[in-house]
Amino acid sequence: MAAPSPALLDSLAALLGPKGFTRDCDAMTPWLTDWRGRFHGRAAALIAPATREEVAQAVRLCASGGVPLVPQGGNTSMVGGATPDASGHALILSLRRMNRIRSLDPEANLAVCEAGVVLANLHEAAQAAGRRFPLSLAAKGSATVGGLVSTNAGGTQVLRFGNMRRLVQGIEAVLPDGSLFDGLTALRKDNRGYDLTQLMIGAEGTLGIVTAASLKLVPAIGSRVVAWVGLATPVAALALLRQLEDRMGGAVESFELVPQGALDLVLAHIPGTRPPLARRHEWHALVEAAAPVGAPSPEPALVEALGAGELVEDAVIAASEAQADAFWRLRESIAEAEKQDGPAVKHDISVAVPDMPGFLVEAAAAVERDFPGVRVNAFGHLGDGNIHFNVRAPAGTDAGWIEGAGAEVSHRVYDLVTAAGGSISAEHGIGQMKLGEFARLGGAARLAALRAIKGALDPAGIMNPGKLVPPPPLAENRRLS
Amino acid sequence: MAAPSPALLDSLAALLGPKGFTRDCDAMTPWLTDWRGRFHGRAAALIAPATREEVAQAVRLCASGGVPLVPQGGNTSMVGGATPDASGHALILSLRRMNRIRSLDPEANLAVCEAGVVLANLHEAAQAAGRRFPLSLAAKGSATVGGLVSTNAGGTQVLRFGNMRRLVQGIEAVLPDGSLFDGLTALRKDNRGYDLTQLMIGAEGTLGIVTAASLKLVPAIGSRVVAWVGLATPVAALALLRQLEDRMGGAVESFELVPQGALDLVLAHIPGTRPPLARRHEWHALVEAAAPVGAPSPEPALVEALGAGELVEDAVIAASEAQADAFWRLRESIAEAEKQDGPAVKHDISVAVPDMPGFLVEAAAAVERDFPGVRVNAFGHLGDGNIHFNVRAPAGTDAGWIEGAGAEVSHRVYDLVTAAGGSISAEHGIGQMKLGEFARLGGAARLAALRAIKGALDPAGIMNPGKLVPPPPLAENRRLS
Repeated sequence: MAAPSPALLDSLAALLGPKGFTRDCDAMTPWLTDWRGRFHGRAAALIAPATREEVAQAVRLCASGGVPLVPQGGNTSMVGGATPDASGHALILSLRRMNRIRSLDPEANLAVCEAGVVLANLHEAAQAAGRRFPLSLAAKGSATVGGLVSTNAGGTQVLRFGNMRRLVQGIEAVLPDGSLFDGLTALRKDNRGYDLTQLMIGAEGTLGIVTAASLKLVPAIGSRVVAWVGLATPVAALALLRQLEDRMGGAVESFELVPQGALDLVLAHIPGTRPPLARRHEWHALVEAAAPVGAPSPEPALVEALGAGELVEDAVIAASEAQADAFWRLRESIAEAEKQDGPAVKHDISVAVPDMPGFLVEAAAAVERDFPGVRVNAFGHLGDGNIHFNVRAPAGTDAGWIEGAGAEVSHRVYDLVTAAGGSISAEHGIGQMKLGEFARLGGAARLAALRAIKGALDPAGIMNPGKLVPPPPLAENRRLS
Repeated sequence: MAAPSPALLDSLAALLGPKGFTRDCDAMTPWLTDWRGRFHGRAAALIAPATREEVAQAVRLCASGGVPLVPQGGNTSMVGGATPDASGHALILSLRRMNRIRSLDPEANLAVCEAGVVLANLHEAAQAAGRRFPLSLAAKGSATVGGLVSTNAGGTQVLRFGNMRRLVQGIEAVLPDGSLFDGLTALRKDNRGYDLTQLMIGAEGTLGIVTAASLKLVPAIGSRVVAWVGLATPVAALALLRQLEDRMGGAVESFELVPQGALDLVLAHIPGTRPPLARRHEWHALVEAAAPVGAPSPEPALVEALGAGELVEDAVIAASEAQADAFWRLRESIAEAEKQDGPAVKHDISVAVPDMPGFLVEAAAAVERDFPGVRVNAFGHLGDGNIHFNVRAPAGTDAGWIEGAGAEVSHRVYDLVTAAGGSISAEHGIGQMKLGEFARLGGAARLAALRAIKGALDPAGIMNPGKLVPPPPLAENRRLS
């Protein structure tokens, strides 16, 4: 890979015009650091094509010069997936100008969106048509369709509707040689070989640039009900989830597990919060159920289902939208409260759903035994087998702990997850942040296959280099050179 | 690729034992021809490993000798996908001995099956546990899990539950270098790079050997209701399907479109059949809805939904299981009746669901105009956008028509499908039968990507050669040599 030549930069500037090409430092700076401020890079220019044809031409120019491209949407990666390296050779390819919803068909339950469409804007457009795009996450005001596709994003509604992989019906993409793959037509059945749409989902821009996607819509929400539930164990929590699903069909949209310790952190650090239940419980669940417009409210069914059996220690149904929002605020403030309390290392991990209750308890015990003083704070999407397994530093430790002992804690957590057959990245991806752990734990067959696919589709290695695909081990490097 | 050396054959015989290795002509013959009798091949031996380790060792031996392998399950491919070529160099690798259901967990709704498990046996095991594997097709007594995964099989319940791609939670596979990819753990969230499980689904054995799969189960059926409906147009049929889905949620499992002409063929050629409705209708729909054990029967809701609005010209609900079976027999006898009536060319095609009613009418008119005397007989899975677009020869034509004028008709049909953004293979795959049409119409970007992936993961080209991935055009071949 090479720095772009002046001639190449001139060609790109001519192709894309002043709105689509800049080397201005002030204009580029915000896009050279990830939003959490942990990764910093440099770039030779920022390009922002307005059409797929401009993307294709820009990619062809860069391919001919061996110049690396870092695709970027809302720049909300959790793993440094959209930040260039320090060489300054790369171009940032922003999709933000391709922000058109090409079509939105409520009859067919389908929206065709360009890569730069911001998630919140898609939500609004769907709502206006009596429909809903059933994926949401905290960064919805910035995150774009292209980034959501390329990271196989999840969020709080995965339990019912699945992650992006389930919601994407087709994509349009520019491949690393500049050719256009048109897979936008939403075919429910298509057996013409390897599924390139599925291959590009979650590829983090390392196999090409997603320029548009056909996305599945569902009926708009007519009514919702939110409950806060006190429970004795994670086993009881999962049993409750199964009971709710059996009795309420697909109405349960969210089921978030919260330990008492996490709730205590929120109550201690976040102003205006109060405990939802009168007594303390070892574990809690935040449950949301929804029904489409015209259908009866899910509230009576939820009340009845929560009352059945012996699983629930205590429960309260939000009496208003304001109280429902307050319950959600408790859940969504855990990360902020934890941060205010002191240093912690965070792990976005998954295991098979039935294994999660046992894993939670046993892995927490193992980590707290091996690293005296640390406190595990594990919470999140129990029904997806996806927990934020955070480990807080011993009381009084300063932030330097994260890079030192914290890194050893992370090794141990990822070892435990791998031994349980789980994933070291449930929803955030690998990016540059998890590249080392992925190389260590990804498994020889998987890593070799990923490298082979990357090498085949992007032989010059220009697409988002240094992300997702670990370089071969040193010995192999030597043999190749 | 090379014929296996005597030493290699000896090694395989020693590895696999007499149950796992044969060169006996009588033993091999049934597996050298596809079940429809259109493709014939030769093989140097038939091997049948009993474990994934034996598969891995056999693949390593063949890789070292550059010997091609043709994986085979129930040998029920519709496109010659499991039949070796005429060279006699290949080994047939049968998965039939790996027929164990490793686990079946009704709580987790998950079955882990080895590749050789026959679909009907999985149905029985799930039923015994109060669950159901919601994919079925005519060949269920022979088709195996490995073949169903490798062809991304569909069937009659795709409308509600999707095809194999939706039902496979993870796979275990031996890659072309003999390494084992263990992706069996059913993780609902896993963002560790390119999804190799999705890549292997529908790869027709060209990227490795699927040895086991984790499969999703659903609650067993408690009650079902089957209706036969008379309709004026395909537009009315699709509108009726949407109406049923809106009013009955997920209860509608099948919605098969049948033109009057197809029903006439069945009534003329299949003994014991009778028309379900008193009068003739241009189009018909066979509808099945189902409810799980313990839930109310879907019959009242179906009766009410069929009665609403003006779409339905006439309808009858099956009064007994025998009558329900008789309705299904009408649908399932269309292919046989058509065959008895005379020669026809068949096309397993799809377009976007909302486009199918228009496509059906316009493509039929175009083909009947361009090829005087032919009669389009198009029927099938309207709700999936997947129709068997068959074209019957002019009356009195002999079977030679299929290879002559029939081939021109097929070109025209595939051209029309491609122009409509559809697929020339909705559910049967490419195999060897559709390789030429796929090369002609697959599109440069898609074909180049498929070839690159195939070359990267199977550089020696030993995995099911001559299937699915069209060879590069002649000019490119010359450059390479």
